[in-house]
Amino acid sequence: MDFVPALGYIAGFCTTVAFLPQVYRAWRTKSCKDLSPGMLMLFAIGILLWLIYGILIQELPIIIANGATFVLVILIVILKFRFD
Amino acid sequence: MDFVPALGYIAGFCTTVAFLPQVYRAWRTKSCKDLSPGMLMLFAIGILLWLIYGILIQELPIIIANGATFVLVILIVILKFRFD
Repeated sequence: MDFVPALGYIAGFCTTVAFLPQVYRAWRTKSCKDLSPGMLMLFAIGILLWLIYGILIQELPIIIANGATFVLVILIVILKFRFD
Repeated sequence: MDFVPALGYIAGFCTTVAFLPQVYRAWRTKSCKDLSPGMLMLFAIGILLWLIYGILIQELPIIIANGATFVLVILIVILKFRFD
């Protein structure tokens, strides 16, 4: 694989799996009060737009990373609604 | 401006300004304990790699958005170290 797409995949891997420890922490502590609702809302909208952008410029790393991140962020939003 | 770069800028605007309410909340409540340190670390690394990726594929929306997001995420990391 070429270096640049590989770098995109590694970047996407990091910013996506980053939300796994956040989901785990929220689930374990049953607390999301320090997570800003404005942050979650804007971030979810932004990730969805990045996903559409990635589809339009046909950059697979952007599509895969933002698709997966969107799922995890929605999971965090659900946990916040449930626990707060 | 064409639609696709404009969409990239709007996406980048959302995922970047998303961290402003998070910085404000952390500052106001003096609490970051619900923020996962693993999330912050992986996310900061990932955003830095997205920034390099954006420079290499010469996509200005990716460069600007990730450059600004990186600054805000580092600010949140500093607040977490200070308050936790």
